[in-house]
Amino acid sequence: MDITEIVTRLVLQLAIILVAAKIGGEVAERVFKQPSVLGELVAGMIIGPFALGGVSFPILGSLFEHASSATAFPEDNSELYAVAQIGSVVLLFRAGLETDFRQFVRYGGPAAVIATGGLLLPFFLGASATVLMGFAHGFTDPVALFMGAIMTATSVGITARVLSDIGKIDTPEGVSVLAAAVIDDVLGILVLTVVVGIAESGGVSAAQVLVVGAKAIGFWLGLLAIGVLVARRVSGLLLGFRGSGASLALALALGFLSAALAESFGLAMIIGAYSMGLALSTTQLRTRLEEAIGGVDHVLVPIFFVFMGMLVDFSAMRLALAFGLVISALAIVSKIVGCGLPSLCLGFNKIGALRIGIGMLPRGEVALIVAGVALTRGIVGSDIFGVAIMMTVVTTVLAPILLVPAFKGSQSGRRKQNAA
Amino acid sequence: MDITEIVTRLVLQLAIILVAAKIGGEVAERVFKQPSVLGELVAGMIIGPFALGGVSFPILGSLFEHASSATAFPEDNSELYAVAQIGSVVLLFRAGLETDFRQFVRYGGPAAVIATGGLLLPFFLGASATVLMGFAHGFTDPVALFMGAIMTATSVGITARVLSDIGKIDTPEGVSVLAAAVIDDVLGILVLTVVVGIAESGGVSAAQVLVVGAKAIGFWLGLLAIGVLVARRVSGLLLGFRGSGASLALALALGFLSAALAESFGLAMIIGAYSMGLALSTTQLRTRLEEAIGGVDHVLVPIFFVFMGMLVDFSAMRLALAFGLVISALAIVSKIVGCGLPSLCLGFNKIGALRIGIGMLPRGEVALIVAGVALTRGIVGSDIFGVAIMMTVVTTVLAPILLVPAFKGSQSGRRKQNAA
Repeated sequence: MDITEIVTRLVLQLAIILVAAKIGGEVAERVFKQPSVLGELVAGMIIGPFALGGVSFPILGSLFEHASSATAFPEDNSELYAVAQIGSVVLLFRAGLETDFRQFVRYGGPAAVIATGGLLLPFFLGASATVLMGFAHGFTDPVALFMGAIMTATSVGITARVLSDIGKIDTPEGVSVLAAAVIDDVLGILVLTVVVGIAESGGVSAAQVLVVGAKAIGFWLGLLAIGVLVARRVSGLLLGFRGSGASLALALALGFLSAALAESFGLAMIIGAYSMGLALSTTQLRTRLEEAIGGVDHVLVPIFFVFMGMLVDFSAMRLALAFGLVISALAIVSKIVGCGLPSLCLGFNKIGALRIGIGMLPRGEVALIVAGVALTRGIVGSDIFGVAIMMTVVTTVLAPILLVPAFKGSQSGRRKQNAA
Repeated sequence: MDITEIVTRLVLQLAIILVAAKIGGEVAERVFKQPSVLGELVAGMIIGPFALGGVSFPILGSLFEHASSATAFPEDNSELYAVAQIGSVVLLFRAGLETDFRQFVRYGGPAAVIATGGLLLPFFLGASATVLMGFAHGFTDPVALFMGAIMTATSVGITARVLSDIGKIDTPEGVSVLAAAVIDDVLGILVLTVVVGIAESGGVSAAQVLVVGAKAIGFWLGLLAIGVLVARRVSGLLLGFRGSGASLALALALGFLSAALAESFGLAMIIGAYSMGLALSTTQLRTRLEEAIGGVDHVLVPIFFVFMGMLVDFSAMRLALAFGLVISALAIVSKIVGCGLPSLCLGFNKIGALRIGIGMLPRGEVALIVAGVALTRGIVGSDIFGVAIMMTVVTTVLAPILLVPAFKGSQSGRRKQNAA
């Protein structure tokens, strides 16, 4: 395809994605009383390359053709994938902006404990089930390790969006979930490094794990520190530009820069974007940005969620249905227990612990990325890949359905003596 | 590069482009009292692959490497090019939205005459100069024909942006320029078809020209008619969705759809986007959209103009400097006279005719596309390509510099007896 055809296809795809997103979101909200993000995911499944989008219509042709697998689809549509990824960066930047920084610091310690619980239990249960159901020969079998790794990843995107929709990002539980999900991503890189090391070379040294871990955690803390230190100065500078448009564009540029830096240090882009948003949340820019970012947000973010839905390959899911159901159930139980138990010990009551556990449920794009790595390296087959997708879909779809009722009412999620 | 590296590079490029755009725009406005679009173009030249962006820094590497020519750069950066093109689509959609439809119909006839004048004179002068200065053997030499074709194209983007910045889109001159530029694009396709036909097969039949022309004009009128007919119904439907975010996303989707349709009929995408914006300008949606589109506009549109600046290859411009200066001068004179004279006969006074002539000056991306076609097909060398770029830069930079003073004061551009 020449460059003009590529752009034309992208513009057409975006038109259809936006229409599908808004219809899906509206149906979810009005008919099913669910958050619109759920409608966007389902809309993506319907128009995606593995459903309607893959059907070749007479004259028109197919919209999302050439998708041989869920991993090949982003490669064949790199422009669309890039736009969707920018949507996720904008989403997390905004989530950081909406977070109360003092709350974040206050819950940073507890969040680290919650994240660790939400990493260990899912990894252990995922690897165990893979061995017990005969898909791996033992705990050191790469397939078992990968299934464990896929179970640990928390996709903060869905939760951030739902909490933002219902105005609960700023609650103790909301802040804990976002902080824990970010820490989870940092820890998740460690797990992935270890697993890839074992799978490829038959072993990995403790020194390697330490180096990668120190780099990831150091980078994140450094970014956050620099962000907080320069935020006030940057904010003053940005407010000096004419109009809210310039502040918005420049603030987004900082978010993009931070995202690219995070990625080049081996972290996910969205961690960089969230950290920069968090740093700017303490400044005067916040109010002006929150108003101005609305339009960008409404257009870009739904594209990301529809794209996530489009990655669902129904035929791959059918291959190992029983295993998929078990893994999905374990994925739910392990995160709710793994994150909920530490929360109970950290001053949250039962409702608060449940909210945090549910908030950590969705695996989303992080699990898909890990699964994609395993598939393309030939470590797992398309059956295990299908199971990973099924688990991702179930947890991603379930989280918003459960989160809204869990946050109903204005009950505090903290135990009395700790309530502010 | 794998898909993650591609996205990381894009996010980094966007961060730097946005910062450069806003600094450039601010310097242009505050220091030089020029429209910010000019600062964005210059910022693009500075950070582009043929200046700073091409320099390989230690550790960091170069930002826009691998750019062997102005045509190869978009191919190597298809994701960035796609985002920039979406910026141009949003810009023209908004320009259509801001146009008064009754004015458009009122000035549609005159605009067709103006467009024809702005096509014939530049083509004739461009081809003649190429022959006279020894770069072509005669008028039927493909080089002469291409130079003529490059001279005819009007890039409505710059003018639309400047007129929007100074709030003059809705004047008789503003509407005439936008309508004429759109018609110019339709006619430009005819010229390009004829020239490519002659260059490749040594001749083209009158029937071919008629078919292509009828298709282009028919499509455009059809799109506009459908747009106007369904706009009210669509507007009602869109206003039924919750929040201005949904209306914005859906309206943009219609703009994208219309752009893709236009491209698939062999017209430029921006024509489709402009036509859909124009159709929606008569509806209740207009006010709501104009507010909501602001954020998208401030972020996406500057990316397009910085990208345009980045295409300037200074070394290619040096190769035929004298010819370039002559062509640039002719490009200015031929559009001002070619469009101004018909305007004088159509009820505009001298000021109005001058405003229209200047508004039609910028060749922008259309000329670059035609030049790129000629270069990649081996019809012109990099010297003629450099001349085309130089002419594009001069006219594009000059238009905003001249437009602002030309529109100063509230003098009518119409002769008394015709003034509303």
